[in-house]
Amino acid sequence: MEQPFHFQLEGSSGRARAGRFSTPHGELETPVFAPVGTQASVKAISPAQLDELGASLVLANTYHLYLRPGDELVAELGGLHQFMQWPKPILTDSGGFQVFSLAARREVDADGVTFRSHLDGATHRFTPEKVMAIQENLGADIIMALDECADPHDEAYSKLALARTHAWAQQCLEAKRRKDQALFGIVQGGIFPELRQQSAEFIASLGFEGHAIGGLSVGESKEDLLRVLEIVDASLPEDKPRYLMGVGTPADLVEGVRRGVDLFDCVLPTRLGRNNAVFLRTGERLNLKNLEFSRDGAPIDEDCGCYTCRTFSRAYLRHLIQAKEMLAATLLSIHNVHTLVQLARDLRAAVLRDEFESFVASLNLKHSPMLEPDAPVE
Amino acid sequence: MEQPFHFQLEGSSGRARAGRFSTPHGELETPVFAPVGTQASVKAISPAQLDELGASLVLANTYHLYLRPGDELVAELGGLHQFMQWPKPILTDSGGFQVFSLAARREVDADGVTFRSHLDGATHRFTPEKVMAIQENLGADIIMALDECADPHDEAYSKLALARTHAWAQQCLEAKRRKDQALFGIVQGGIFPELRQQSAEFIASLGFEGHAIGGLSVGESKEDLLRVLEIVDASLPEDKPRYLMGVGTPADLVEGVRRGVDLFDCVLPTRLGRNNAVFLRTGERLNLKNLEFSRDGAPIDEDCGCYTCRTFSRAYLRHLIQAKEMLAATLLSIHNVHTLVQLARDLRAAVLRDEFESFVASLNLKHSPMLEPDAPVE
Repeated sequence: MEQPFHFQLEGSSGRARAGRFSTPHGELETPVFAPVGTQASVKAISPAQLDELGASLVLANTYHLYLRPGDELVAELGGLHQFMQWPKPILTDSGGFQVFSLAARREVDADGVTFRSHLDGATHRFTPEKVMAIQENLGADIIMALDECADPHDEAYSKLALARTHAWAQQCLEAKRRKDQALFGIVQGGIFPELRQQSAEFIASLGFEGHAIGGLSVGESKEDLLRVLEIVDASLPEDKPRYLMGVGTPADLVEGVRRGVDLFDCVLPTRLGRNNAVFLRTGERLNLKNLEFSRDGAPIDEDCGCYTCRTFSRAYLRHLIQAKEMLAATLLSIHNVHTLVQLARDLRAAVLRDEFESFVASLNLKHSPMLEPDAPVE
Repeated sequence: MEQPFHFQLEGSSGRARAGRFSTPHGELETPVFAPVGTQASVKAISPAQLDELGASLVLANTYHLYLRPGDELVAELGGLHQFMQWPKPILTDSGGFQVFSLAARREVDADGVTFRSHLDGATHRFTPEKVMAIQENLGADIIMALDECADPHDEAYSKLALARTHAWAQQCLEAKRRKDQALFGIVQGGIFPELRQQSAEFIASLGFEGHAIGGLSVGESKEDLLRVLEIVDASLPEDKPRYLMGVGTPADLVEGVRRGVDLFDCVLPTRLGRNNAVFLRTGERLNLKNLEFSRDGAPIDEDCGCYTCRTFSRAYLRHLIQAKEMLAATLLSIHNVHTLVQLARDLRAAVLRDEFESFVASLNLKHSPMLEPDAPVE
């Protein structure tokens, strides 16, 4: 019988990889960028628009959906694909990151974490078994093990949290019931090379369907992030997909792919879109509220093929912003998500041609601002 | 040489009419409902979504666009069709209604009206010549003469305002320069039958391309509105389109078409959509925020063909509302606009079959709540 999940490496260029990951809701061609639908909606973008801009994988947040509308309600309504009407692959996180960054209060112990909802202050508890059950109710194609997100610069705490994260990883594997979901383990260890290597080796030994790199893009320096990526890249097995959580910008995607990463997600393109800002392919950002765009008949990016750029001028987009029209957020978010989705595709094509570095050089990337800190709620 | 505008009556059923109005941006099949794009955007709906839901005519507001971004800027960027990327017919109002309902202060005299912007308090002046120039800059297919909107229950003021409205109508005709825009005159006169008849006869005598019925849907009783419609219907020429401004609901559309109206516009479907409410075809409204919809797997309306109803459950829409997701406003607005656009089409088809009354009976319309007061800003 065929496995529901299969990762096929199709090419490489330096450490950069191109692959194909089969899921029950279709194949993911990697590298791939996943927009974030925190509450079962990629903010301001309809599923039809998301499909048209070329998205394949969408991330949804376990913490948010557990609290509202509730994972059992989602299951009763046919699961997340049916609920949000996204027929392609979905990934849910474990909720760990949100508990440690967003919940009103939290208390962690060896067996799990007790926290208060940011919505109403009610007390809840996540354990490895609980987050598996929630994610099985939600029914995403890719699900994540519970992890503890420590301050990446606090070595003592990072060690303690890593021990718990490793124990929880094993417990998640044991608690998992559904066969049609791929469970990924998460490598933690802050900015500390030896902890990261130890974590990557341990997590890799457990037999997950894929591996995630967590606890980054939370305020560490660019040098620290790249060093961690290189250590983890060297320690994780080649034949499983690697997912860098909560990243990125155009430049971040390039740096991640260059160091062997296959999957990315980030709220940044939609959050920027709701705040008048757009990416160019070079990584530069424009604030379309600026007066200089008021008479600008050009699209955001002449070379972009998204609906927004094919259709509207910067002057019209600026007018929508000035007039506080909701359509501004939709059109800017479409452009920003498309930019990252398309960049991941172009990086994939360059890897398949074994021309990764020359393609990256041709992008003429501006490296500022790099590595935006990830934030827990959109 | 062919006229750019031509109204062809294609059928009738009682007083209800079906027609075809040619414009430089395509033919309007009447009766037709126009969603409102106050600031050159139908709120929360992209032009692609608007096209997909079947809209043909879109209304935009002269007052708003004159103030922001400015009609000269719109002209510089190629006109309103190019600016907002709506390739089908557009109608602009004269700005009169907004000046009298929305501007911070106003002072009217025989030659025009001086007012302060609701945006920044700056003083501006609209005259017949000025609103023609603004609308020629905007470049809509259908433009409106300047009128004065009086309290419909104040007979003395209605008389005074009517005299000014009639003088301004003539001045607008004289000031108009562009040949590719159809100018409509506006019938006023409050709830007073003799004033309405006098106004309809006078306005009809001036040779406009079409006639509008203004000053209704602003708080008068249903009986008054229907009486006015009947008087105007009897006094306006058959061979020009008739436009009932600022109406309606499903029931309003039926009552209007029954009394010879061809064109409608209203902010209601998009305003309701941003406030969690949806129309059913019967005119009933649902507030999707209600708890009763939390586990409801059915679409808003089983018989509706819009994207929202083809795709999403009430339970998901309620979740989006509860989670304060912007997508809720988009999906509800799409449904509401589609409901009115499609109802107008179905009424047209019934007129062409000469089965208007039996079709209306089959709709099983709920007549409450009727005739929502129109409000000046969305």
